Amino acid sequence: MSTIYYGVAYYDEYMPQERLAADIAMMKEAGINIVRIAESTWSTLEPQEGEYNFYHIDRVLNAMHEAGIAVIIGTPTYAIPSWLARKHPEVMVTSVKGQEKYGRRQIMDIVSPTFLRYAENIIRVLLEHVHTHPAIVGYQLDNETKHYDNVGPVMQQKFVETLRQRYPSLEQMNKDFGLDYWSNRIDSWEDFPPAASTINASLGCAFSTFQRQTVTDYLAWQSRIVSEYSRPDQFITHNFDFEWRGYSYGVQPRVNHFAAAKALTVAGVDIYHPSQAQLTGREISFGGDITRALKQGAGYLVLETEAQGFAQWTPFPGQLRLQAFSHIASGAKMVSYWHWHSIHNSFETYWKGLLSHDFSPNPTYLEAKTIGADLARLSAELDGLKIENDVAILISNEAMDAVNWFKPGDAQSNVYNDVFRRFYDALYDNNISVDIINDVDAGCSRYRVIVVPALYAADDALLKRINHYVESGGQVLIGFKSGFSDENVKVRTCRQPGILSECCRVTYSQFVLPQDTGLNSHCPELVITTEDCAELWMELLTPDESEQVQVLASYQHPVWEKYAAITESRYGKGSAIYMGCLSSKKVISQLVLRLADKKTLASCNSAHSFPVIVKKAVGKKGKRLTFYFNYSSDIQQIQQPEGAVCLLGDSDALSSHRGEIEPWGLRVYQSDV
Amino acid sequence: MSTIYYGVAYYDEYMPQERLAADIAMMKEAGINIVRIAESTWSTLEPQEGEYNFYHIDRVLNAMHEAGIAVIIGTPTYAIPSWLARKHPEVMVTSVKGQEKYGRRQIMDIVSPTFLRYAENIIRVLLEHVHTHPAIVGYQLDNETKHYDNVGPVMQQKFVETLRQRYPSLEQMNKDFGLDYWSNRIDSWEDFPPAASTINASLGCAFSTFQRQTVTDYLAWQSRIVSEYSRPDQFITHNFDFEWRGYSYGVQPRVNHFAAAKALTVAGVDIYHPSQAQLTGREISFGGDITRALKQGAGYLVLETEAQGFAQWTPFPGQLRLQAFSHIASGAKMVSYWHWHSIHNSFETYWKGLLSHDFSPNPTYLEAKTIGADLARLSAELDGLKIENDVAILISNEAMDAVNWFKPGDAQSNVYNDVFRRFYDALYDNNISVDIINDVDAGCSRYRVIVVPALYAADDALLKRINHYVESGGQVLIGFKSGFSDENVKVRTCRQPGILSECCRVTYSQFVLPQDTGLNSHCPELVITTEDCAELWMELLTPDESEQVQVLASYQHPVWEKYAAITESRYGKGSAIYMGCLSSKKVISQLVLRLADKKTLASCNSAHSFPVIVKKAVGKKGKRLTFYFNYSSDIQQIQQPEGAVCLLGDSDALSSHRGEIEPWGLRVYQSDV
Amino acid sequence: MSTIYYGVAYYDEYMPQERLAADIAMMKEAGINIVRIAESTWSTLEPQEGEYNFYHIDRVLNAMHEAGIAVIIGTPTYAIPSWLARKHPEVMVTSVKGQEKYGRRQIMDIVSPTFLRYAENIIRVLLEHVHTHPAIVGYQLDNETKHYDNVGPVMQQKFVETLRQRYPSLEQMNKDFGLDYWSNRIDSWEDFPPAASTINASLGCAFSTFQRQTVTDYLAWQSRIVSEYSRPDQFITHNFDFEWRGYSYGVQPRVNHFAAAKALTVAGVDIYHPSQAQLTGREISFGGDITRALKQGAGYLVLETEAQGFAQWTPFPGQLRLQAFSHIASGAKMVSYWHWHSIHNSFETYWKGLLSHDFSPNPTYLEAKTIGADLARLSAELDGLKIENDVAILISNEAMDAVNWFKPGDAQSNVYNDVFRRFYDALYDNNISVDIINDVDAGCSRYRVIVVPALYAADDALLKRINHYVESGGQVLIGFKSGFSDENVKVRTCRQPGILSECCRVTYSQFVLPQDTGLNSHCPELVITTEDCAELWMELLTPDESEQVQVLASYQHPVWEKYAAITESRYGKGSAIYMGCLSSKKVISQLVLRLADKKTLASCNSAHSFPVIVKKAVGKKGKRLTFYFNYSSDIQQIQQPEGAVCLLGDSDALSSHRGEIEPWGLRVYQSDV
Repeated sequence: MSTIYYGVAYYDEYMPQERLAADIAMMKEAGINIVRIAESTWSTLEPQEGEYNFYHIDRVLNAMHEAGIAVIIGTPTYAIPSWLARKHPEVMVTSVKGQEKYGRRQIMDIVSPTFLRYAENIIRVLLEHVHTHPAIVGYQLDNETKHYDNVGPVMQQKFVETLRQRYPSLEQMNKDFGLDYWSNRIDSWEDFPPAASTINASLGCAFSTFQRQTVTDYLAWQSRIVSEYSRPDQFITHNFDFEWRGYSYGVQPRVNHFAAAKALTVAGVDIYHPSQAQLTGREISFGGDITRALKQGAGYLVLETEAQGFAQWTPFPGQLRLQAFSHIASGAKMVSYWHWHSIHNSFETYWKGLLSHDFSPNPTYLEAKTIGADLARLSAELDGLKIENDVAILISNEAMDAVNWFKPGDAQSNVYNDVFRRFYDALYDNNISVDIINDVDAGCSRYRVIVVPALYAADDALLKRINHYVESGGQVLIGFKSGFSDENVKVRTCRQPGILSECCRVTYSQFVLPQDTGLNSHCPELVITTEDCAELWMELLTPDESEQVQVLASYQHPVWEKYAAITESRYGKGSAIYMGCLSSKKVISQLVLRLADKKTLASCNSAHSFPVIVKKAVGKKGKRLTFYFNYSSDIQQIQQPEGAVCLLGDSDALSSHRGEIEPWGLRVYQSDV
Repeated sequence: MSTIYYGVAYYDEYMPQERLAADIAMMKEAGINIVRIAESTWSTLEPQEGEYNFYHIDRVLNAMHEAGIAVIIGTPTYAIPSWLARKHPEVMVTSVKGQEKYGRRQIMDIVSPTFLRYAENIIRVLLEHVHTHPAIVGYQLDNETKHYDNVGPVMQQKFVETLRQRYPSLEQMNKDFGLDYWSNRIDSWEDFPPAASTINASLGCAFSTFQRQTVTDYLAWQSRIVSEYSRPDQFITHNFDFEWRGYSYGVQPRVNHFAAAKALTVAGVDIYHPSQAQLTGREISFGGDITRALKQGAGYLVLETEAQGFAQWTPFPGQLRLQAFSHIASGAKMVSYWHWHSIHNSFETYWKGLLSHDFSPNPTYLEAKTIGADLARLSAELDGLKIENDVAILISNEAMDAVNWFKPGDAQSNVYNDVFRRFYDALYDNNISVDIINDVDAGCSRYRVIVVPALYAADDALLKRINHYVESGGQVLIGFKSGFSDENVKVRTCRQPGILSECCRVTYSQFVLPQDTGLNSHCPELVITTEDCAELWMELLTPDESEQVQVLASYQHPVWEKYAAITESRYGKGSAIYMGCLSSKKVISQLVLRLADKKTLASCNSAHSFPVIVKKAVGKKGKRLTFYFNYSSDIQQIQQPEGAVCLLGDSDALSSHRGEIEPWGLRVYQSDV
Repeated sequence: MSTIYYGVAYYDEYMPQERLAADIAMMKEAGINIVRIAESTWSTLEPQEGEYNFYHIDRVLNAMHEAGIAVIIGTPTYAIPSWLARKHPEVMVTSVKGQEKYGRRQIMDIVSPTFLRYAENIIRVLLEHVHTHPAIVGYQLDNETKHYDNVGPVMQQKFVETLRQRYPSLEQMNKDFGLDYWSNRIDSWEDFPPAASTINASLGCAFSTFQRQTVTDYLAWQSRIVSEYSRPDQFITHNFDFEWRGYSYGVQPRVNHFAAAKALTVAGVDIYHPSQAQLTGREISFGGDITRALKQGAGYLVLETEAQGFAQWTPFPGQLRLQAFSHIASGAKMVSYWHWHSIHNSFETYWKGLLSHDFSPNPTYLEAKTIGADLARLSAELDGLKIENDVAILISNEAMDAVNWFKPGDAQSNVYNDVFRRFYDALYDNNISVDIINDVDAGCSRYRVIVVPALYAADDALLKRINHYVESGGQVLIGFKSGFSDENVKVRTCRQPGILSECCRVTYSQFVLPQDTGLNSHCPELVITTEDCAELWMELLTPDESEQVQVLASYQHPVWEKYAAITESRYGKGSAIYMGCLSSKKVISQLVLRLADKKTLASCNSAHSFPVIVKKAVGKKGKRLTFYFNYSSDIQQIQQPEGAVCLLGDSDALSSHRGEIEPWGLRVYQSDV
């Protein structure tokens, strides 16, 4: 890949009328240079078992090739045909709600041997047919694969087999998981009860981990098949997605993105986000940072994002541009819309594409034309961006499971993501760019600050590596509940926060829920106002008696005021801040900047804050690119980099009003590093 | 039928003690001249299969006849006996929640051959026994029949058969319904998946339509059986009901009233509504207008309405009278309470009748006595009223299904009814009386204005007939989303609002959700204040460039203000107002009055508005009746018709305070037409 | 038992590391003199069918005995082992949600013969092994037994058998239950439909009563088995619990405590309650009063209450003491925490014990040490307290079922408990101590006032006994809905409130829901302000025409103001207040005090009101004990009893600030009776 891809998903299969030539003409006009096809069209490809139909595939491949538009072929496996469901009801996934009935996509049992046999067949038939076609630049495995809350018999059996391998002795498992409690002991493998109905968090979390493993295994299996057909210059990717709250909100609970991405040559993702007055860029940055991390900082593909999308997302003028370049600034090498044309029947009629149902140019399409033109013009500058940050934030699916098993108070949502996003957003809003990490290892020495939110379940070794990172000169910001339980979600019997007490120099044995509880700052630099409350959880912290630790904040509470809420310690060459509660983005960003020397934190662009977002990268030519984004309806002032060239922006405005960005506008500057 | 019927449902079967003679004495005293019996008493009639018991039926028929009280016999099929459920579990309906268990009424599968066989038997046995009895004036088929969300095997099989007849070629069905999407194609009838779990709106709506058809078929089947026994002077009716929101709120989604009513000789209905301070008369008028439409404007039977009802409905003094004459003013020829006596056991103990559990006269019963007396006195004037309106509002079950499949934003309720009632209530509150229509055809030329809310799914022909109506001189008010999709819920590929663009002279290809979005009036006569927002949906309208269309209102929004919200066009001899959003009743009523020439709109009584409601009708003798209703706790002023005779009202008050109506009071005037 | 027990639940089975000696040392230090073991450890005791393991039981019994700590052995039956669920799926209970899957506790079918066979075996094996051990002072049967909403086949069959015995003639059952309604008749026992899906309140309530009977039978069955092994000096108890609203809120709907307690020699209970700023003592008093009533006023065991509990319960300093002595003041002879140590795995990790997960002394444990010391010091004074009240409040499971079947308006909760707690709390907050009674019989003549909330379902005899109580000189406060239906939940056909009209001299036949409806006082002593509304329900009361009844309050309502809301009557030598609506605690407490002569009501300590709570008792030595509790964060003033000795309190504070109690503090005084 030697260019920035600007793409759309294209479904010739769904067209109510002949559109191919007209669509391609409009694509060319808009600078679309790639389409993504086939990923949910199994029943069109194989309308009956063993009967194949390549009509749409062939004509789209040929027409696109002729037009010079590249093609990504998706394996069609994530939506199964009705004949398969009828012939083999066992391919339908069973969740705690019962076995799925035919209708939706993503209702199959991805560990079912029957399903796998049929899926392998259609993949091989399709790839055998197309793999020599010159239009194809890459393959997408399945789509948004998850385990679909599978608790079916095959899943159960495989889970028990895995435990059986891990635990030659049941006694150790009973002990690790604490199964004596409520008479839950298992003293014969035959007695193993349904994992789905367990009330044992240790067993339940082990099952969640295993469910994610089946996704990893499934994508690796598809990757091996596709590899038999793909050429070295073709990529293999997958379209990952995120915890969904009507949009891409948080870390995906049902997939371990880091493990699953090993089967890919390039990471792919879909990112959907609020728009109009609610557009902030947070999800674009958050999703991009995660996806960039999956292949060690390499550029990634935004395989899907919204063009018009839902009615509440129809973009304001300028927003489609703002979004596209925000993806680029996070390291995307492709921005592709789901989808070209709005669909006229079925479920996603109101998830609109770049075109409305009338196929005519509309304001969103017209704006896309300017993006296509700019991407084509700036391709050499924007492709292959290198993004280096000296702040990182630690992600853990296992900690998520465990935290969510024990939600504080009345919380109903995915609490881990509530907390993770609070930390992430605090950094984003204050223009502290981050890398996402999935471990703290030797390579982490390149980070000046590591943020550790809610690391509730972790083995001793990881906690010790965090201590070691600090001892060696690193700075950590550790959130409440971290260190509390081990990798089996067994609470540690030492003083909390467990092994992390060593670097944090603080302990607690009691915790409460905040009730309108404020925070008192103990140092003048830490600005805390009445809005900055203790939220969600309050650990009653006591610093150790050394002079190596100081209280940064305590609780405003008639009884609990004697306990610390936030502490800072020196440990070896580094330092650690421990937060015993959740607090505001304002408090969190101050703590991160306190840990680093603000002036020299490379990741930080402290001159601006949300709604002005600044992103930096280094282009292939070794030039520094600085992006300025105005995520607001007001004109914003920016400090332009010294001696920089403006690659993108309103040049008229620049000449007369230097340093202003129009509402929902952006600027890209190039300078020497 | 040559009189106004004043009735009650009567259940001798449920009596805890001997009451028949005492009850009849009290009925006579209250002017009750009809009772409705037997409609849920199958297990009493047939306590075991083939064993029959006519004890209650016979004694009630004989005693009523002796007392000169007419009787309506209900077929007893809407609540099945326990022995039938035990012997034939397959008669229990299956919905997406599973198969019903015995207990409630309305839990049977009305397409089950077994159920139909037993139902036919008990109907025939009952009618054979009673049909010569002189007390019987009519029959009611079943009760509040619906399809009970039936998705059982017989329903599925019949649905597929129907499609198979409609589509000799599966390819056309795949195309009409867009089944390629998400691999939903059906390439063999054997593969047809469960209709209940489809995510395809086209298929789902086709199934809903078919479910309603089974209700039509079921009532026609009962009607044929009953016709074998009934005499020409006896009517055949059914008790229709409405979308239930704790009361009769909206158009019934599970029955096509217009189709089902073909099996009847007279339409019947139940109407329940809020009372006390929440009594508005809206549901009485709304339900009455629909029911009057079912048999081309003929008088209808209010087979059930509340006497005391729920605790929150116990009527204020005067309200029972107000309600009764409101029914009459909408065209009812019968007002019957559910039910005579409050029931001492089981489910509806707190749905109280005219009598409380103690069988003694209570304030509500005492008020009923005055109603009975007035109805008897005025029977000649009030029976056979002819109600003619020059405004109509279009209803469509198919549009309802389709709109509700794609609810805007976070809406959870039946959105079609939310919208329909907004339009209906706007007219009601401003005393613009309407007819309900189920089509726009040649007969509609008698209407000066037709209101078309949310006609989301409609075939080309209907939309063209609307254009033609306007072209020929009609006025239409068309609501947002109309014209969007065809009869298969396939979105049209032309510019929206599809074929209606022709008469409306407006187009759009984008739409958004309002967020505190106001409206700007573009003409001085249209009064819009800050309360009159865009609600629920916003289409970004662009009028065509002719001078035949003007913008009446635009959106108050920093970005969308350039788009029209409401437009008015000239087309042929008529005109059309198009609303791109929902707005207040105040805005809607202004638009209707703008379309018509206010002064000469016969349906409009613009001198008054809610809480003073005015209804007009013409009596059998050719005299004009004008009803004034005070739906408030305050005294209200009315303009009495010139030269009119007061048939009903507080004559003392009239003499001294002409033109005043007491709280919850009413007046009826008679005048020459 | 000759001492106050201070205890904990102790689970050697759950320990992640060897703790027994260390734990016992810490227990001794804290004055813990009893532990409760084994109640949920079946799978540890019998890891496979017929294989037994007494390791933990033996070592704990021996170690405790050596340390002088008494032991309660719980039968281990309330949580079943996984092997039993696998071998015999029929032991899993079936509710309307379906059959339980293995995982939680309390998921078994307690009428299943299979379950009972296995349960009997493990009880006998355990007791055979331990029953000679000298450490054991008593046995606990099962734990928090309920019927688990059992609607399974055995339950259904047994229910039908019971009815069959009760009703030789089905006709009488059809009549009593009103089964003609909606065709629900049962004319053959074979046809009996599932009790679970009935919509007939009479049948449904009969089923609820039967479900509770199975709990009574189950505990009696366990009691008979345990009695075969226990010595006369050992007690047999059970751990009852309450309607759970995140804490012990109300009367238990699934157990008839009075009936079930017959199988016990001493009553036991768990009481959990809000804490921190929400600590009020109400649940401690409410739960204690009920439990004390179960064995005719004898002392009871608080087998479980919170030490730290949930994060929102972690006690403020002083609260653990306040709570412990509040239990004692209500008649508890044991206060035992659930549980000693916080559990490291599984479901209740965040239901913390006296120790946190780190087993170290924490503030809560340190406070427990002072309690243990004070209990030891004052054991002679505090054990065997006799509590005599002259006010009683009537409880009825049958009335609860029936009221909840017909919840007023939009109420969703257990309305009976909402109402019951309003009455109870009104008395508690105003320091009117009460006995709980389950009937009004001859023994009730010792009460000056009886309060009767929501006695909706009751047979004629009970209502007549209430009339007789009044006639004989008693005073009653009767709440709305009382007397309405008979013991079969058939509404009475006489004027309401039925038979109680005799003593109350008031009738009604209509009722409505309040909508911001105030009350007007008709007598100067009854102080009603705008906060004291009619709530939940409004009966439109009319007093009879005698001079024996007066209206105390009427409704503030434009229409209903002519009806009485609260009346007071003279009847024989007594008097009765009838409330036609719910109202505030302030109104209720005034009415009770009005009935009694305030100055001489022994149960009343009118000098104080919440947050200062006063409780009185007589010790074994015949001395009067008076407890003062400060349920607030502020210092409170108290009037110390004349000539009393302070047994417990802050003596320093006493000397200088007599009459003050510190926040969350308490005082105990001893004086002559």
